[in-house]
Amino acid sequence: MKQEFIDPWASALPKDYLDLVKKFGLEKFEAGNLPSVNLLMRRGFVFAGRDLKTIFDCIKNKKPFYALTGIMPTADKVHFGTKSVIDLMVYFQKHGAETYVLVADLEAAATRGTSLEEARKRALEVHIPCYIALGLDAKKTKFYFQSDNDDVRNLAFELSNKATLNEYRAIYGNAEPSRIMASILQVADILHPQIKKKIPGIVPVGIDQDPHIRLARDIARRSGFIPPSSVNMKYLPSLAGGMKMSKSEGNSLYLLDSDEEIKKKISKAVTGGQKTKQEQEEKGGNPDEDMIFELFRQHLIESDSELKKREEDYRNGRLLDSENKEFATKLLIKFMKDFRKKYESAKKQVGKLRF
Amino acid sequence: MKQEFIDPWASALPKDYLDLVKKFGLEKFEAGNLPSVNLLMRRGFVFAGRDLKTIFDCIKNKKPFYALTGIMPTADKVHFGTKSVIDLMVYFQKHGAETYVLVADLEAAATRGTSLEEARKRALEVHIPCYIALGLDAKKTKFYFQSDNDDVRNLAFELSNKATLNEYRAIYGNAEPSRIMASILQVADILHPQIKKKIPGIVPVGIDQDPHIRLARDIARRSGFIPPSSVNMKYLPSLAGGMKMSKSEGNSLYLLDSDEEIKKKISKAVTGGQKTKQEQEEKGGNPDEDMIFELFRQHLIESDSELKKREEDYRNGRLLDSENKEFATKLLIKFMKDFRKKYESAKKQVGKLRF
Repeated sequence: MKQEFIDPWASALPKDYLDLVKKFGLEKFEAGNLPSVNLLMRRGFVFAGRDLKTIFDCIKNKKPFYALTGIMPTADKVHFGTKSVIDLMVYFQKHGAETYVLVADLEAAATRGTSLEEARKRALEVHIPCYIALGLDAKKTKFYFQSDNDDVRNLAFELSNKATLNEYRAIYGNAEPSRIMASILQVADILHPQIKKKIPGIVPVGIDQDPHIRLARDIARRSGFIPPSSVNMKYLPSLAGGMKMSKSEGNSLYLLDSDEEIKKKISKAVTGGQKTKQEQEEKGGNPDEDMIFELFRQHLIESDSELKKREEDYRNGRLLDSENKEFATKLLIKFMKDFRKKYESAKKQVGKLRF
Repeated sequence: MKQEFIDPWASALPKDYLDLVKKFGLEKFEAGNLPSVNLLMRRGFVFAGRDLKTIFDCIKNKKPFYALTGIMPTADKVHFGTKSVIDLMVYFQKHGAETYVLVADLEAAATRGTSLEEARKRALEVHIPCYIALGLDAKKTKFYFQSDNDDVRNLAFELSNKATLNEYRAIYGNAEPSRIMASILQVADILHPQIKKKIPGIVPVGIDQDPHIRLARDIARRSGFIPPSSVNMKYLPSLAGGMKMSKSEGNSLYLLDSDEEIKKKISKAVTGGQKTKQEQEEKGGNPDEDMIFELFRQHLIESDSELKKREEDYRNGRLLDSENKEFATKLLIKFMKDFRKKYESAKKQVGKLRF
């Protein structure tokens, strides 16, 4: 039997998310009686996780926990796929999580050759202000750089003897030195908040990052830490469909795109519509394989009833691609106008943060 | 053909040093017209190296270079084998080397599970004062801990993509994550003085550490650093012979041993003498396989003519083991008395050092 790996560095979209849940021993995400779930949670984009009950219990009983995510400073832009992660971080922060956002500058140096200076510049000028503009409370969030966090770097070395080369291979299928170091560093990032206070933590990740989580959980068990919980989201596909939206993909929507860029990108987005207006009116379109609807569902339309009506209209041929794209463009331009204001104000806040 | 590895973690003595020089492509050490060579150099205990000419040239022409060595804080004692390394460091320091002594606390944590606190305590209370007492100039030596040197830790991650897993295997025969991390960290230690100023450096090492040097040289070439030079010394055997003197070996002589311990250890040391006094007087002994003479040659007798006479007397049966051991004990007790004074004064200096 050929072993299946999840490659954290791959860019294709998984074909069947529920299949992954089974194959990798994940828990299905069920919001249950979580307070005021966000649209990603209630629409099934948040679909799986590990040890979710531990965190749900902290939220319900107002017990301390932490949430952690990272910035990979290999690009100078933040795409809409990242927004989903930050939306979840904002949710956890609002519900009591101590919040950590790390800049993975050492990982970027090890695996991509990005210089620490370049990484720092990008993080301070783009990523961190974007994250704050997306709703993270700058005062309540501990932003840090791997390259100047003593706890994290030293913990990485201390934990390096808690997993074997064969375990890295079993998890990743590959174990080059730079990846081993990047992975141990991630584990140290994930566990380091427990050095001062042993409380549960949760990491929102794409399913492709689950290998890191499994490694972190194994190493945590062997070193007296609480195994971290994780929560997995479906990917936002690129506007061309088929692939994850990512910074290395040409058809991505970025948080600081200009109105012109938005118009151009949306106009080219792949839809579930028919080839001609007439055909669309006759046969209707398929909102489930439509990149515009992906944006509506994950980011642009908050109201479930409004979304449902729009999906029905599209399916029934009452809504054309052109109208749909026009509406998406309008919503995006509105979002961006507001976002840019918040971003500019966040940049000023970043100047006052201590790193 | 079975590949031969040098295992940096092994404890047996090499059988033939010159054979190692050939097999591993080392240069033979020839002091040539180096100024005021120390006894280890002139008696052939310093026997090999890499790129020695580069450093000899710096010494002769008073050009800047650096010398670096490390403290492995897995024991709370310093044995006489380590003294040889420091004697060489003192030589380089006196001849112009910028001097670095690192405490390998992260390596000890990764490969031996030693806590950073314990490592720090041992280094400050024992190792560093001993090194100063052996002659390193505290004011001219940069002592540092891996766990708080930003340049070193960050360089380790930056350099991690400059060598592949297969290269680690080819060099070490084994590539567990903790060893990979410890090795990359050593490379970063060795190269980090060049971040500020690109000058040649030399590392005195036991031949078992040559794999680290080769890795450091390969990585240096790929990242724009000057490949470090190295200089290799023969080991001081344990007093029981056969094995390296080491902190994990029972028959080691330590720098802070009491007079009673010295007497006891020397009395039990393996010699090249005969079983009875009569036999010794008739057949003579073999100073080449005598642990007392090892101490004389490497540490206790500075005068070449005095050493030569004693060896001849021993060979000719004019000198008994009991007399020889008595003399060694006397010299050691004298050395220790002086050393302990220097150690106590060095401890006060350490308190004033900045780390």
